[in-house]
Amino acid sequence: MKPDQFKLILPMPVTVITTIDAAGVSNAAPYGCVMPVLRPLDLVALASALPRDTLRNIRETGEFVINVMGRPSFDRAMNTARNYPAGVSELVEEGIDTAPSVKVTPPRIADALGWIEAVTDREISAENYALILGKVVCAEISDRYVEEGTLSEPPAVMLSPYYRLVGEPIGDARETMKLFLGNPAPDG
Amino acid sequence: MKPDQFKLILPMPVTVITTIDAAGVSNAAPYGCVMPVLRPLDLVALASALPRDTLRNIRETGEFVINVMGRPSFDRAMNTARNYPAGVSELVEEGIDTAPSVKVTPPRIADALGWIEAVTDREISAENYALILGKVVCAEISDRYVEEGTLSEPPAVMLSPYYRLVGEPIGDARETMKLFLGNPAPDG
Repeated sequence: MKPDQFKLILPMPVTVITTIDAAGVSNAAPYGCVMPVLRPLDLVALASALPRDTLRNIRETGEFVINVMGRPSFDRAMNTARNYPAGVSELVEEGIDTAPSVKVTPPRIADALGWIEAVTDREISAENYALILGKVVCAEISDRYVEEGTLSEPPAVMLSPYYRLVGEPIGDARETMKLFLGNPAPDG
Repeated sequence: MKPDQFKLILPMPVTVITTIDAAGVSNAAPYGCVMPVLRPLDLVALASALPRDTLRNIRETGEFVINVMGRPSFDRAMNTARNYPAGVSELVEEGIDTAPSVKVTPPRIADALGWIEAVTDREISAENYALILGKVVCAEISDRYVEEGTLSEPPAVMLSPYYRLVGEPIGDARETMKLFLGNPAPDG
Protein backbone atom coordinates (compact mmCIF):
# COMPACT_ATOMS: atom_id res chain seq x y z
CA MET A 1 0.00 0.00 0.00
CA LYS A 2 1.04 3.60 -0.36
CA PRO A 3 2.74 5.16 2.67
CA ASP A 4 -0.22 7.44 3.40
CA GLN A 5 -2.48 4.38 3.65
CA PHE A 6 -0.86 3.27 6.90
CA LYS A 7 -4.06 4.32 8.63
CA LEU A 8 -5.56 1.08 7.33
CA ILE A 9 -3.90 -0.72 10.21
CA LEU A 10 -3.97 1.91 12.94
CA PRO A 11 -7.38 1.88 14.62
CA MET A 12 -8.45 5.02 16.44
CA PRO A 13 -11.28 5.83 18.84
CA VAL A 14 -14.39 7.47 17.45
CA THR A 15 -14.81 10.85 19.08
CA VAL A 16 -16.94 13.88 18.43
CA ILE A 17 -15.48 17.18 19.55
CA THR A 18 -17.84 19.88 20.78
CA THR A 19 -16.85 23.52 20.92
CA ILE A 20 -18.48 26.94 20.91
CA ASP A 21 -17.52 29.99 18.93
CA ALA A 22 -16.98 33.45 20.36
CA ALA A 23 -20.68 34.20 19.87
CA GLY A 24 -21.65 31.10 21.87
CA VAL A 25 -22.89 28.95 18.97
CA SER A 26 -22.09 25.29 19.53
CA ASN A 27 -20.32 23.09 17.02
CA ALA A 28 -19.75 19.34 16.81
CA ALA A 29 -17.54 17.35 14.47
CA PRO A 30 -16.06 13.84 14.40
CA TYR A 31 -12.36 13.55 15.05
CA GLY A 32 -10.34 10.38 14.63
CA CYS A 33 -6.90 11.77 15.43
CA VAL A 34 -7.04 12.03 19.20
CA MET A 35 -4.62 10.43 21.65
CA PRO A 36 -3.51 10.68 25.26
CA VAL A 37 -0.04 12.10 25.80
CA LEU A 38 1.60 9.64 28.17
CA ARG A 39 -0.02 7.57 30.84
CA PRO A 40 0.78 9.63 33.92
CA LEU A 41 -0.03 13.04 32.40
CA ASP A 42 -3.35 14.87 32.04
CA LEU A 43 -2.66 15.86 28.43
CA VAL A 44 -4.55 14.93 25.29
CA ALA A 45 -3.45 15.64 21.72
CA LEU A 46 -5.62 16.12 18.67
CA ALA A 47 -4.70 16.75 15.07
CA SER A 48 -6.89 18.99 12.98
CA ALA A 49 -7.01 20.22 9.43
CA LEU A 50 -6.64 23.99 9.33
CA PRO A 51 -9.98 25.10 7.87
CA ARG A 52 -12.22 23.36 10.40
CA ASP A 53 -14.74 25.18 12.57
CA THR A 54 -13.64 23.12 15.56
CA LEU A 55 -10.10 24.42 15.31
CA ARG A 56 -11.28 28.00 14.85
CA ASN A 57 -13.48 27.70 17.94
CA ILE A 58 -10.69 26.18 20.02
CA ARG A 59 -8.47 29.07 19.01
CA GLU A 60 -11.20 31.55 19.95
CA THR A 61 -12.17 30.09 23.30
CA GLY A 62 -9.41 27.67 24.35
CA GLU A 63 -11.96 25.01 25.34
CA PHE A 64 -13.24 21.75 23.90
CA VAL A 65 -14.97 18.53 24.89
CA ILE A 66 -13.98 15.16 23.46
CA ASN A 67 -17.12 13.03 23.43
CA VAL A 68 -16.18 9.35 23.26
CA MET A 69 -18.84 7.46 21.35
CA GLY A 70 -20.05 3.89 21.52
CA ARG A 71 -22.20 1.73 19.33
CA PRO A 72 -25.57 3.06 20.57
CA SER A 73 -24.78 6.66 19.70
CA PHE A 74 -22.38 6.17 16.82
CA ASP A 75 -24.71 6.57 13.87
CA ARG A 76 -26.34 9.78 14.96
CA ALA A 77 -23.07 11.26 16.13
CA MET A 78 -21.56 10.71 12.72
CA ASN A 79 -24.23 12.98 11.26
CA THR A 80 -22.31 15.86 12.78
CA ALA A 81 -19.84 15.31 9.93
CA ARG A 82 -22.39 16.86 7.57
CA ASN A 83 -21.22 20.12 6.17
CA TYR A 84 -23.08 22.91 7.92
CA PRO A 85 -21.78 26.45 7.59
CA ALA A 86 -19.87 28.11 10.42
CA GLY A 87 -22.30 29.66 12.89
CA VAL A 88 -24.81 26.81 12.50
CA SER A 89 -24.86 24.19 15.23
CA GLU A 90 -24.68 20.58 14.04
CA LEU A 91 -26.07 19.61 17.44
CA VAL A 92 -29.21 21.66 16.90
CA GLU A 93 -29.62 20.78 13.23
CA GLU A 94 -29.27 17.06 13.88
CA GLY A 95 -31.34 17.11 17.05
CA ILE A 96 -28.58 15.68 19.21
CA ASP A 97 -29.24 16.02 22.94
CA THR A 98 -26.62 17.82 24.94
CA ALA A 99 -25.85 18.31 28.62
CA PRO A 100 -23.82 21.00 30.34
CA SER A 101 -20.15 20.34 30.90
CA VAL A 102 -18.63 20.57 34.37
CA LYS A 103 -15.56 22.74 33.84
CA VAL A 104 -15.85 24.22 30.36
CA THR A 105 -18.50 26.09 28.37
CA PRO A 106 -18.99 23.81 25.31
CA PRO A 107 -21.78 21.27 25.91
CA ARG A 108 -21.44 17.51 26.08
CA ILE A 109 -23.26 15.07 23.82
CA ALA A 110 -25.69 13.44 26.23
CA ASP A 111 -25.48 9.87 24.99
CA ALA A 112 -21.70 9.63 24.68
CA LEU A 113 -19.95 6.93 26.72
CA GLY A 114 -17.75 9.53 28.32
CA TRP A 115 -16.53 13.08 28.18
CA ILE A 116 -13.07 14.59 28.28
CA GLU A 117 -13.19 18.32 28.97
CA ALA A 118 -10.01 20.16 28.05
CA VAL A 119 -8.45 23.59 27.80
CA THR A 120 -5.73 24.42 25.32
CA ASP A 121 -2.24 23.96 26.72
CA ARG A 122 -0.30 24.49 23.51
CA GLU A 123 -0.82 24.63 19.76
CA ILE A 124 1.71 23.44 17.21
CA SER A 125 0.93 24.60 13.72
CA ALA A 126 2.29 23.53 10.39
CA GLU A 127 1.43 24.26 6.79
CA ASN A 128 -1.27 21.65 6.55
CA TYR A 129 -2.22 20.61 10.06
CA ALA A 130 -2.47 21.85 13.62
CA LEU A 131 -1.83 19.85 16.76
CA ILE A 132 -3.69 20.96 19.84
CA LEU A 133 -2.43 19.81 23.21
CA GLY A 134 -5.17 20.07 25.78
CA LYS A 135 -4.97 19.91 29.54
CA VAL A 136 -7.81 17.69 30.73
CA VAL A 137 -9.80 19.46 33.43
CA CYS A 138 -12.64 16.96 33.83
CA ALA A 139 -13.21 13.37 32.69
CA GLU A 140 -16.40 11.43 33.31
CA ILE A 141 -17.98 8.18 32.24
CA SER A 142 -21.72 8.18 31.64
CA ASP A 143 -23.63 6.39 34.40
CA ARG A 144 -25.74 4.94 31.61
CA TYR A 145 -22.86 2.73 30.50
CA VAL A 146 -21.48 1.57 33.81
CA GLU A 147 -22.58 -1.75 35.27
CA GLU A 148 -21.05 -3.07 38.46
CA GLY A 149 -18.12 -0.74 38.16
CA THR A 150 -17.15 -1.62 34.61
CA LEU A 151 -17.92 -0.11 31.25
CA SER A 152 -20.82 -2.05 29.76
CA GLU A 153 -20.21 -0.80 26.23
CA PRO A 154 -16.77 -0.54 24.66
CA PRO A 155 -15.81 2.77 23.09
CA ALA A 156 -16.21 2.72 19.33
CA VAL A 157 -13.03 2.16 17.39
CA MET A 158 -12.52 2.29 13.69
CA LEU A 159 -9.75 2.09 11.19
CA SER A 160 -9.25 5.70 10.36
CA PRO A 161 -9.06 5.68 6.56
CA TYR A 162 -12.68 4.60 6.51
CA TYR A 163 -13.48 7.58 8.62
CA ARG A 164 -15.42 9.69 6.17
CA LEU A 165 -15.86 13.35 6.74
CA VAL A 166 -18.20 15.99 5.44
CA GLY A 167 -20.99 14.30 3.62
CA GLU A 168 -19.29 11.22 2.31
CA PRO A 169 -21.02 7.91 2.96
CA ILE A 170 -20.09 6.25 6.22
CA GLY A 171 -21.05 2.75 5.16
CA ASP A 172 -17.43 1.72 5.10
CA ALA A 173 -16.91 2.91 8.62
CA ARG A 174 -19.78 0.76 9.80
CA GLU A 175 -18.34 -2.26 8.03
CA THR A 176 -14.99 -1.65 9.62
CA MET A 177 -16.47 -1.24 13.06
CA LYS A 178 -17.89 -4.75 12.85
CA LEU A 179 -14.35 -5.99 13.26
CA PHE A 180 -14.31 -4.49 16.71
CA LEU A 181 -17.88 -4.22 17.84
CA GLY A 182 -19.81 -6.86 16.00
CA ASN A 183 -22.90 -5.76 14.13
CA PRO A 184 -23.91 -2.20 14.96
CA ALA A 185 -27.24 -1.52 16.53
CA PRO A 186 -30.08 -1.14 14.03
CA ASP A 187 -31.02 2.36 12.96
CA GLY A 188 -33.59 4.36 14.83
CA MET B 1 -12.67 9.95 37.92
CA LYS B 2 -9.63 12.21 38.11
CA PRO B 3 -8.85 14.23 34.97
CA ASP B 4 -5.72 12.21 34.22
CA GLN B 5 -7.80 9.03 34.15
CA PHE B 6 -9.50 10.03 30.90
CA LYS B 7 -7.46 7.30 29.23
CA LEU B 8 -9.96 4.85 30.70
CA ILE B 9 -12.32 5.67 27.86
CA LEU B 10 -9.90 6.40 25.02
CA PRO B 11 -8.80 3.13 23.43
CA MET B 12 -5.54 3.13 21.51
CA PRO B 13 -3.88 0.65 19.17
CA VAL B 14 -1.21 -1.62 20.61
CA THR B 15 2.06 -0.94 18.86
CA VAL B 16 5.67 -1.86 19.45
CA ILE B 17 8.23 0.61 18.16
CA THR B 18 11.52 -0.74 16.89
CA THR B 19 14.61 1.45 16.57
CA ILE B 20 18.38 1.10 16.49
CA ASP B 21 20.96 3.12 18.34
CA ALA B 22 23.97 4.78 16.72
CA ALA B 23 25.97 1.58 17.30
CA GLY B 24 23.35 -0.47 15.46
CA VAL B 25 21.85 -2.26 18.48
CA SER B 26 18.12 -2.79 18.04
CA ASN B 27 15.51 -1.79 20.58
CA ALA B 28 11.82 -2.54 20.92
CA ALA B 29 9.24 -1.08 23.28
CA PRO B 30 5.44 -0.90 23.45
CA TYR B 31 3.87 2.46 22.71
CA GLY B 32 0.23 3.30 23.21
CA CYS B 33 0.33 6.96 22.26
CA VAL B 34 0.48 6.76 18.47
CA MET B 35 -1.93 8.39 16.02
CA PRO B 36 -2.17 9.36 12.39
CA VAL B 37 -2.08 13.09 11.69
CA LEU B 38 -5.01 13.68 9.36
CA ARG B 39 -6.44 11.31 6.83
CA PRO B 40 -4.88 12.67 3.64
CA LEU B 41 -1.37 13.14 5.05
CA ASP B 42 1.49 10.68 5.44
CA LEU B 43 2.29 11.82 8.97
CA VAL B 44 2.17 9.86 12.20
CA ALA B 45 2.56 11.27 15.72
CA LEU B 46 3.84 9.53 18.80
CA ALA B 47 4.22 10.76 22.34
CA SER B 48 7.14 9.55 24.41
CA ALA B 49 8.42 10.02 27.91
CA LEU B 50 11.85 11.65 27.83
CA PRO B 51 14.07 8.96 29.37
CA ARG B 52 13.14 6.17 26.95
CA ASP B 53 15.68 4.34 24.79
CA THR B 54 13.28 4.53 21.85
CA LEU B 55 13.28 8.32 21.95
CA ARG B 56 17.05 8.46 22.29
CA ASN B 57 17.44 6.16 19.28
CA ILE B 58 14.99 8.17 17.20
CA ARG B 59 16.96 11.30 18.02
CA GLU B 60 20.22 9.56 17.06
CA THR B 61 19.08 8.01 13.80
CA GLY B 62 15.81 9.72 12.78
CA GLU B 63 14.18 6.38 11.97
CA PHE B 64 11.61 4.11 13.57
CA VAL B 65 9.17 1.33 12.77
CA ILE B 66 5.70 1.15 14.30
CA ASN B 67 4.79 -2.53 14.49
CA VAL B 68 1.02 -2.92 14.78
CA MET B 69 0.22 -5.98 16.85
CA GLY B 70 -2.70 -8.36 16.86
CA ARG B 71 -3.93 -11.05 19.17
CA PRO B 72 -1.54 -13.79 17.98
CA SER B 73 1.59 -11.77 18.67
CA PHE B 74 0.38 -9.57 21.49
CA ASP B 75 1.63 -11.47 24.51
CA ARG B 76 5.18 -11.95 23.33
CA ALA B 77 5.41 -8.42 22.00
CA MET B 78 4.45 -7.05 25.40
CA ASN B 79 7.55 -8.72 26.84
CA THR B 80 9.54 -5.97 25.15
CA ALA B 81 8.26 -3.75 27.97
CA ARG B 82 10.66 -5.51 30.33
CA ASN B 83 13.36 -3.23 31.56
CA TYR B 84 16.56 -4.10 29.74
CA PRO B 85 19.44 -1.63 29.89
CA ALA B 86 20.26 0.61 26.95
CA GLY B 87 22.47 -1.24 24.48
CA VAL B 88 20.69 -4.55 25.07
CA SER B 89 18.16 -5.60 22.45
CA GLU B 90 14.75 -6.63 23.77
CA LEU B 91 14.23 -8.41 20.46
CA VAL B 92 17.25 -10.64 20.98
CA GLU B 93 16.67 -11.17 24.70
CA GLU B 94 13.03 -12.12 24.21
CA GLY B 95 13.71 -14.19 21.10
CA ILE B 96 11.36 -12.18 18.92
CA ASP B 97 11.82 -12.84 15.22
CA THR B 98 12.53 -9.83 13.05
CA ALA B 99 12.62 -9.09 9.35
CA PRO B 100 14.39 -6.32 7.47
CA SER B 101 12.48 -3.14 6.83
CA VAL B 102 12.06 -1.78 3.32
CA LYS B 103 13.06 1.87 3.65
CA VAL B 104 14.64 2.25 7.09
CA THR B 105 17.36 0.49 9.08
CA PRO B 106 15.49 -0.64 12.24
CA PRO B 107 14.06 -4.15 11.82
CA ARG B 108 10.41 -5.14 11.80
CA ILE B 109 8.82 -7.59 14.19
CA ALA B 110 8.08 -10.52 11.93
CA ASP B 111 4.70 -11.53 13.28
CA ALA B 112 3.15 -8.05 13.52
CA LEU B 113 -0.03 -7.41 11.54
CA GLY B 114 1.61 -4.53 9.76
CA TRP B 115 4.49 -2.14 9.74
CA ILE B 116 4.72 1.61 9.49
CA GLU B 117 8.23 2.76 8.65
CA ALA B 118 8.88 6.42 9.39
CA VAL B 119 11.57 9.08 9.46
CA THR B 120 11.47 12.01 11.84
CA ASP B 121 9.79 15.06 10.35
CA ARG B 122 9.71 17.19 13.48
CA GLU B 123 10.13 16.89 17.23
CA ILE B 124 8.23 18.96 19.74
CA SER B 125 9.70 18.81 23.22
CA ALA B 126 8.31 19.83 26.54
CA GLU B 127 9.38 19.45 30.13
CA ASN B 128 7.88 16.01 30.57
CA TYR B 129 7.13 14.61 27.11
CA ALA B 130 8.27 14.66 23.52
CA LEU B 131 6.08 14.45 20.44
CA ILE B 132 7.69 12.94 17.38
CA LEU B 133 6.06 13.61 14.03
CA GLY B 134 7.17 11.02 11.54
CA LYS B 135 6.85 10.99 7.77
CA VAL B 136 5.72 7.52 6.76
CA VAL B 137 7.99 6.16 4.04
CA CYS B 138 6.62 2.61 3.83
CA ALA B 139 3.50 0.88 5.13
CA GLU B 140 2.77 -2.80 4.65
CA ILE B 141 0.30 -5.36 5.92
CA SER B 142 1.61 -8.86 6.63
CA ASP B 143 0.50 -11.37 4.01
CA ARG B 144 -0.04 -13.74 6.90
CA TYR B 145 -3.08 -11.77 8.02
CA VAL B 146 -4.73 -11.01 4.71
CA GLU B 147 -7.50 -13.22 3.40
CA GLU B 148 -9.36 -12.36 0.22
CA GLY B 149 -8.14 -8.81 0.35
CA THR B 150 -9.21 -8.02 3.89
CA LEU B 151 -7.47 -8.12 7.22
CA SER B 152 -8.27 -11.45 8.87
CA GLU B 153 -7.19 -10.32 12.33
CA PRO B 154 -8.06 -6.92 13.77
CA PRO B 155 -5.26 -4.83 15.20
CA ALA B 156 -5.11 -5.07 18.97
CA VAL B 157 -6.71 -2.19 20.81
CA MET B 158 -6.69 -1.55 24.48
CA LEU B 159 -7.76 1.07 26.93
CA SER B 160 -4.53 2.82 27.58
CA PRO B 161 -4.46 3.14 31.37
CA TYR B 162 -4.26 -0.64 31.55
CA TYR B 163 -1.25 -0.49 29.35
CA ARG B 164 1.47 -1.44 31.77
CA LEU B 165 5.06 -0.60 31.06
CA VAL B 166 8.36 -1.82 32.39
CA GLY B 167 7.81 -4.95 34.36
CA GLU B 168 4.35 -4.36 35.69
CA PRO B 169 1.84 -7.16 35.26
CA ILE B 170 -0.11 -7.06 32.02
CA GLY B 171 -3.04 -9.08 33.26
CA ASP B 172 -5.23 -6.00 33.23
CA ALA B 173 -4.37 -5.31 29.64
CA ARG B 174 -5.48 -8.78 28.65
CA GLU B 175 -8.75 -8.34 30.49
CA THR B 176 -9.35 -5.06 28.73
CA MET B 177 -8.54 -6.51 25.35
CA LYS B 178 -11.32 -9.04 25.74
CA LEU B 179 -13.70 -6.15 25.25
CA PHE B 180 -12.37 -5.74 21.77
CA LEU B 181 -10.90 -9.05 20.73
CA GLY B 182 -12.67 -11.74 22.72
CA ASN B 183 -10.54 -14.15 24.68
CA PRO B 184 -6.87 -13.95 23.81
CA ALA B 185 -5.09 -16.95 22.38
CA PRO B 186 -3.77 -19.36 25.03
CA ASP B 187 -0.17 -18.96 26.14
CA GLY B 188 2.64 -20.83 24.45
